[in-house]
Amino acid sequence: MGKPNKKRRKYMIIHGPNLNLLGRREPEIFGTMTLSDINDKLMEFAGQENIDLEIIQSNSEGIIIDALHKAMNDIDGVVINPGAYSHYSLAILDAVQACGRPVIEVHLSNIYSREEFRRRSVIAPVCRGQITGLGWYGYILALQALAKK
Amino acid sequence: MGKPNKKRRKYMIIHGPNLNLLGRREPEIFGTMTLSDINDKLMEFAGQENIDLEIIQSNSEGIIIDALHKAMNDIDGVVINPGAYSHYSLAILDAVQACGRPVIEVHLSNIYSREEFRRRSVIAPVCRGQITGLGWYGYILALQALAKK
Amino acid sequence: MGKPNKKRRKYMIIHGPNLNLLGRREPEIFGTMTLSDINDKLMEFAGQENIDLEIIQSNSEGIIIDALHKAMNDIDGVVINPGAYSHYSLAILDAVQACGRPVIEVHLSNIYSREEFRRRSVIAPVCRGQITGLGWYGYILALQALAKK
Amino acid sequence: MGKPNKKRRKYMIIHGPNLNLLGRREPEIFGTMTLSDINDKLMEFAGQENIDLEIIQSNSEGIIIDALHKAMNDIDGVVINPGAYSHYSLAILDAVQACGRPVIEVHLSNIYSREEFRRRSVIAPVCRGQITGLGWYGYILALQALAKK
Amino acid sequence: MGKPNKKRRKYMIIHGPNLNLLGRREPEIFGTMTLSDINDKLMEFAGQENIDLEIIQSNSEGIIIDALHKAMNDIDGVVINPGAYSHYSLAILDAVQACGRPVIEVHLSNIYSREEFRRRSVIAPVCRGQITGLGWYGYILALQALAKK
Amino acid sequence: MGKPNKKRRKYMIIHGPNLNLLGRREPEIFGTMTLSDINDKLMEFAGQENIDLEIIQSNSEGIIIDALHKAMNDIDGVVINPGAYSHYSLAILDAVQACGRPVIEVHLSNIYSREEFRRRSVIAPVCRGQITGLGWYGYILALQALAKK
Amino acid sequence: MGKPNKKRRKYMIIHGPNLNLLGRREPEIFGTMTLSDINDKLMEFAGQENIDLEIIQSNSEGIIIDALHKAMNDIDGVVINPGAYSHYSLAILDAVQACGRPVIEVHLSNIYSREEFRRRSVIAPVCRGQITGLGWYGYILALQALAKK
Amino acid sequence: MGKPNKKRRKYMIIHGPNLNLLGRREPEIFGTMTLSDINDKLMEFAGQENIDLEIIQSNSEGIIIDALHKAMNDIDGVVINPGAYSHYSLAILDAVQACGRPVIEVHLSNIYSREEFRRRSVIAPVCRGQITGLGWYGYILALQALAKK
Amino acid sequence: MGKPNKKRRKYMIIHGPNLNLLGRREPEIFGTMTLSDINDKLMEFAGQENIDLEIIQSNSEGIIIDALHKAMNDIDGVVINPGAYSHYSLAILDAVQACGRPVIEVHLSNIYSREEFRRRSVIAPVCRGQITGLGWYGYILALQALAKK
Amino acid sequence: MGKPNKKRRKYMIIHGPNLNLLGRREPEIFGTMTLSDINDKLMEFAGQENIDLEIIQSNSEGIIIDALHKAMNDIDGVVINPGAYSHYSLAILDAVQACGRPVIEVHLSNIYSREEFRRRSVIAPVCRGQITGLGWYGYILALQALAKK
Amino acid sequence: MGKPNKKRRKYMIIHGPNLNLLGRREPEIFGTMTLSDINDKLMEFAGQENIDLEIIQSNSEGIIIDALHKAMNDIDGVVINPGAYSHYSLAILDAVQACGRPVIEVHLSNIYSREEFRRRSVIAPVCRGQITGLGWYGYILALQALAKK
Amino acid sequence: MGKPNKKRRKYMIIHGPNLNLLGRREPEIFGTMTLSDINDKLMEFAGQENIDLEIIQSNSEGIIIDALHKAMNDIDGVVINPGAYSHYSLAILDAVQACGRPVIEVHLSNIYSREEFRRRSVIAPVCRGQITGLGWYGYILALQALAKK
Repeated sequence: MGKPNKKRRKYMIIHGPNLNLLGRREPEIFGTMTLSDINDKLMEFAGQENIDLEIIQSNSEGIIIDALHKAMNDIDGVVINPGAYSHYSLAILDAVQACGRPVIEVHLSNIYSREEFRRRSVIAPVCRGQITGLGWYGYILALQALAKK
Repeated sequence: MGKPNKKRRKYMIIHGPNLNLLGRREPEIFGTMTLSDINDKLMEFAGQENIDLEIIQSNSEGIIIDALHKAMNDIDGVVINPGAYSHYSLAILDAVQACGRPVIEVHLSNIYSREEFRRRSVIAPVCRGQITGLGWYGYILALQALAKK
Repeated sequence: MGKPNKKRRKYMIIHGPNLNLLGRREPEIFGTMTLSDINDKLMEFAGQENIDLEIIQSNSEGIIIDALHKAMNDIDGVVINPGAYSHYSLAILDAVQACGRPVIEVHLSNIYSREEFRRRSVIAPVCRGQITGLGWYGYILALQALAKK
Repeated sequence: MGKPNKKRRKYMIIHGPNLNLLGRREPEIFGTMTLSDINDKLMEFAGQENIDLEIIQSNSEGIIIDALHKAMNDIDGVVINPGAYSHYSLAILDAVQACGRPVIEVHLSNIYSREEFRRRSVIAPVCRGQITGLGWYGYILALQALAKK
Repeated sequence: MGKPNKKRRKYMIIHGPNLNLLGRREPEIFGTMTLSDINDKLMEFAGQENIDLEIIQSNSEGIIIDALHKAMNDIDGVVINPGAYSHYSLAILDAVQACGRPVIEVHLSNIYSREEFRRRSVIAPVCRGQITGLGWYGYILALQALAKK
Repeated sequence: MGKPNKKRRKYMIIHGPNLNLLGRREPEIFGTMTLSDINDKLMEFAGQENIDLEIIQSNSEGIIIDALHKAMNDIDGVVINPGAYSHYSLAILDAVQACGRPVIEVHLSNIYSREEFRRRSVIAPVCRGQITGLGWYGYILALQALAKK
Repeated sequence: MGKPNKKRRKYMIIHGPNLNLLGRREPEIFGTMTLSDINDKLMEFAGQENIDLEIIQSNSEGIIIDALHKAMNDIDGVVINPGAYSHYSLAILDAVQACGRPVIEVHLSNIYSREEFRRRSVIAPVCRGQITGLGWYGYILALQALAKK
Repeated sequence: MGKPNKKRRKYMIIHGPNLNLLGRREPEIFGTMTLSDINDKLMEFAGQENIDLEIIQSNSEGIIIDALHKAMNDIDGVVINPGAYSHYSLAILDAVQACGRPVIEVHLSNIYSREEFRRRSVIAPVCRGQITGLGWYGYILALQALAKK
Repeated sequence: MGKPNKKRRKYMIIHGPNLNLLGRREPEIFGTMTLSDINDKLMEFAGQENIDLEIIQSNSEGIIIDALHKAMNDIDGVVINPGAYSHYSLAILDAVQACGRPVIEVHLSNIYSREEFRRRSVIAPVCRGQITGLGWYGYILALQALAKK
Repeated sequence: MGKPNKKRRKYMIIHGPNLNLLGRREPEIFGTMTLSDINDKLMEFAGQENIDLEIIQSNSEGIIIDALHKAMNDIDGVVINPGAYSHYSLAILDAVQACGRPVIEVHLSNIYSREEFRRRSVIAPVCRGQITGLGWYGYILALQALAKK
Repeated sequence: MGKPNKKRRKYMIIHGPNLNLLGRREPEIFGTMTLSDINDKLMEFAGQENIDLEIIQSNSEGIIIDALHKAMNDIDGVVINPGAYSHYSLAILDAVQACGRPVIEVHLSNIYSREEFRRRSVIAPVCRGQITGLGWYGYILALQALAKK
Repeated sequence: MGKPNKKRRKYMIIHGPNLNLLGRREPEIFGTMTLSDINDKLMEFAGQENIDLEIIQSNSEGIIIDALHKAMNDIDGVVINPGAYSHYSLAILDAVQACGRPVIEVHLSNIYSREEFRRRSVIAPVCRGQITGLGWYGYILALQALAKK
């Protein structure tokens, strides 16, 4: 997977609000892996696939927007888990649309089987795709999809 | 991917209404691959991963329900693209829930960036997860996710 | 109950989608009796009350409509459990209205204490009445009501 | 019907607001039987089935709640026709839930074929079941269902 | 006004909840006349017009329903100010419809220029007419209308 | 009624769209009196009460607004039946509010017992009051109320 | 088509607001024919079918209502394209209902594939039928339908 | 009408659910002609106009979709009366859009003057046009419109 | 807490419908203390703080309104738990507003984490404040708040 | 401002319903300047900027549409204050769109801080822009914007 | 109040956006005390009750989330006034839920008697309780409730 | 324009989220000028008009609130383009209201002709006015309006 490029590909992973608590927060929904564990998995995958990863976590809407702007420069694609901002941050929607890079939205849990308000992502319409409910492995799948295209 | 099992795994792929027209229908949205082309890709992947696939296409809600019931017997997981039935078939929702197998919903296009009525899947809440907007490769990702767990 | 008629009465029982899975599907809601067990109970009651029963199960909306049309010929009343079609099948609504026979809607579970989307039957307005939440015994009560009138 | 118990069963019938006018009020919907006629039928059935009945009618929400509270003491089940209170009395909903007895909601007419505001019962979700549109005979069927279980 | 009848006409006036506080409650909306002052005006008018009046005030929905039932016996028409019950008491709606007498709904204030929830009367559809915003004089106008027809 | 004033009072009656057809249009709702018959009744009442009346009918929203503007000059109060414009003409609402005269809205039929869209008057909030369902006599009552205050 | 009548039939065509701009306005939706071109086609058809036509265009709601009233006298049927008034003019609705002649609503474009607000005609419920999306030929079809019955 | 073509045109007529009952079902709405009577009229018209017709009736959503797919091969246009499926079958909507042939939607009755749920066709936006309320003659008009263009 | 007054303060506690069942009803939500236990706690607190308490419980809307009217005479403030009436009793809303005393609404459970219909109190807008989710101790806090001001 | 053109520019100002009352109507919202005062200001500005102005005021929707049509001939841009028609006149929306000239919508008051129904302009989507809440000076700003482009 | 603990309790107070302006902003709603005055009161109370307080104010959603995360370490409970974030910050909702500490929501004003949009707190469902409308004293009551449990 | 003041006026310009990308982001909507180009234009205008400008851009809701608070000290008015925060930031709404300075909302594009969610600004009701769709020149117009008053 990930065909050999002359120029090495670089992707950005953005973890949104409260994801820094993974492993401590509602383990029956989110499992017991910490964010650090997930990032290790992602780096390991990146190593195998010969790609570069830049990983960011923030609880702040403004900093996530800044990161998406920064991706315009040298990033080939973005995997974003916008956490609860998914459901109302029209400012992140604009930033995704503005950055001009392929963005895939990932959620660890199946947001469509949780509370009503979690069932609508205002960001999804401007992403290339969305992967939900498949745990940390969804990030890997998203990277694969970015690399594939 | 897909760890070696003693017992060979078997998955069902269900293609819903109008998917038999792929390649002829709105190629700017769905691309030019036919359903037969996609099925070839899926069979090739199944061969590589050493799994069995049963592939079904129907325009009829009742036949899709019958297929899900049949999956209760010897199928380890289902990948379903319910087409437009996604948006109103509560009977398929019941069948997914009743069949007791992990089911992943796949859509070729990003349904969240199309008409309003396509942005809600009544079936998603009872699936394990949903993959949208990643084209035919979404089926492969779904099979990977089934095999992973 | 059921007063002696010169002409023996004949009723139709229509079981809608997914009811063929009774006993295997969500037993905490629907109990462990199979559809076959219920049909035996209904035939036993019919024998006691000296009435004829025609019993049909289908997962297909079109076949349920066909059955209602057929009831116009020699059936004195219909007991229908439309399953999830209750909530959206306006075509079955039309068939109930068109068939000109008294129809009673039955649901095994109390649809009013389940998910929001199950709390409205589009078919109920054209039925004579509705019985919900009383399990398989609801069918017996519905037959009594048809026989009474 | 109603299997022989060592301890004689006792049920409560609650008739809600305006039901005291039966026979005088909109006979094209409710028929010409008076409430007294219906109560005679119910007492006759109780005599045949060897059960005790306590029958109450009130136009007052508070008194209906008091009756449901009283049922906690020595009543084995309740059949309630909450009349128009069905559509908004959350206080009766609480009383039904609190009383801890099986309660079956009955409506003489098919509330689903009348005005829009009559098509939703706020009380139904906490009842065991609901019987509508089968006239006074619906009370008999409800008593049978209570006796059956 | 009020043409000479052989049989003297008798009307009922029903004042609903909180109207007993008139003169003490929000005088900027309802003025400083007490309910007793208004009733004196009404009795004076009745004397002039040679009609009988029965005047009732209650804060209880059940008692208002009882009054409407009582009107079936010897009352030629009803003027009702249902207060806040106007906006949700479907049980009073049923009683108005059931009583079979012409009923005119009166509100002292213009309910259409107050809070949103006051702008809909669930009772109005079954009344002969409605008079709002004309203060105590609205009762006089309503009696004239009943007497006219 | 109408206490003796030194200066003779002058009121305007505005009949809105389609009221010129009265007597020919849906007589089961609006009766068989023509608009001319009603105007005769109003003029007769005005003569008895010693008041001046200016009566206008128009099917045009703009002309009704012009009339309300004209009322600012020498009219002491307005009785308006805005017909179907009641339900959407925010421009007439503004004209009623702007004209600074007491305005009473009248409807011949009980708009609250007709189609859903007739049950809301956007104009009512800026009128002094509203009289509905009392036929042509509603105009007389409205004039009495204007004269009373 | 149009069977020979002793008395020659006369129909009215009403073109609503902005239709006078046809050919100049959004030709990608409405084509390049002017209103005058369409009227020539209609007159030609009328000549062939031996019927009389009265054709009116107005941008004013009031004048359209006046025309419908006038149709009560000597017109056998009306074909109306109410333009944007279709979506909110309840006063035109009343005029259609009041005029007592068969009225067929026509739209040049398919209003159901345009903006959301154009997808509901408040006037359609009181027309005999509606023809949309078939361009100027829709008027011809409407005249045929009037002549047929 | 229908200008002489070198290649003879072929159209498909699709009658949706419950239309097989025409003449037996609610004759006050749908008249007393049977579907067979209507089809005779259509064949007669086709003969006069020198066109081929393929006529299908089905109560099943899936079979209607199959028919639309089949139309892609040798049919020049489709006239469809989707019955109650009009109001919710997004799968038929997709099939209409996918088939790439001009499709005109026809309804015998004026769906805009019936129940609220019948007033919206989800299929209309992807049809060329819609004809409602003109009885069986609406099919003839639709064929004329197809032939015209 | 509660500063020394010359005139001893008197407060009213109103317990609404079904609260008489406390301790017996849904103890997982409401705990095992009975209403009598709570009232003892409140009286003990009143003794410590040197205030008078009048405590009322009723299942009847009318009696609760009467109590609020009575509070106009010699009560310095009211703590009300309107139970399910919170969600629809506009008549109690009017009584709270009319009584002119500071009123604090208390709920034992957190109504915002229960069913949707419990999340809106129509009475809260006219209360001074609301305390929810803090069990019986909420009544004490409310009394402290009344005494503080 | 307004760069020197060889051909002198000409703009139309359209004042909608009730604006003729400016200065007499709700001065706390609209100030004490009359429409004539505003027009003087606008003419003075036009003189300074060397542009021609055509100023129209009408209370009639039809006449406003006529004016917009007239603007197609020799007007370079339109400033329109549609008054209350802003909120529902889809016919003016069509006329704005059809006239093919840049149109700027102006409101004297901030419509977004007034009643709910004033917060939505159906016309705004087809205008070039909208200026609200800046009093008569908003017209000047709109003219500047037209001249700028 | 606050029973003697061996280990001294520590609580966090979080003041949300715009609360730094207290005393300067809308004093008719929020009073003239500054945030500093309130914090002094809270510290004084903490001293009396022998508890530790950590007090934070921020206008930034991200910083409030950070604070809630920090509370997981050594804080026994949180009192939060989320200001306007209450009405839409699902990210704060998640942080409250994740932090695993009892959190009580406080509002100075009665949010239920202010604008519509302030009447719903999305955060309330995951708090232990909510106190509104009791001014700065609400914070004290919340601390008492935390200490009590 | 801008009349000579003794004390030089100072205004603040706030550019909200994603505006730093101007010129790079969706040029077909926002044009090719960068934010820096616009700020140059604004400074040039300020120089001509002899006013001071403070210009801020931030992607963070909290920093925008801080800026509005800072404006309370020495700023005479604010021009704000809140970007996507316009549609949901109730916290910015509060800050605008709290700051006590005249604030004018500006949008480069016509937000009323874009996606549905962009058509409502929650901030507009507390601004003095709003200017949309006039590009960068809207900022100039807003400054003129501030200077005028």
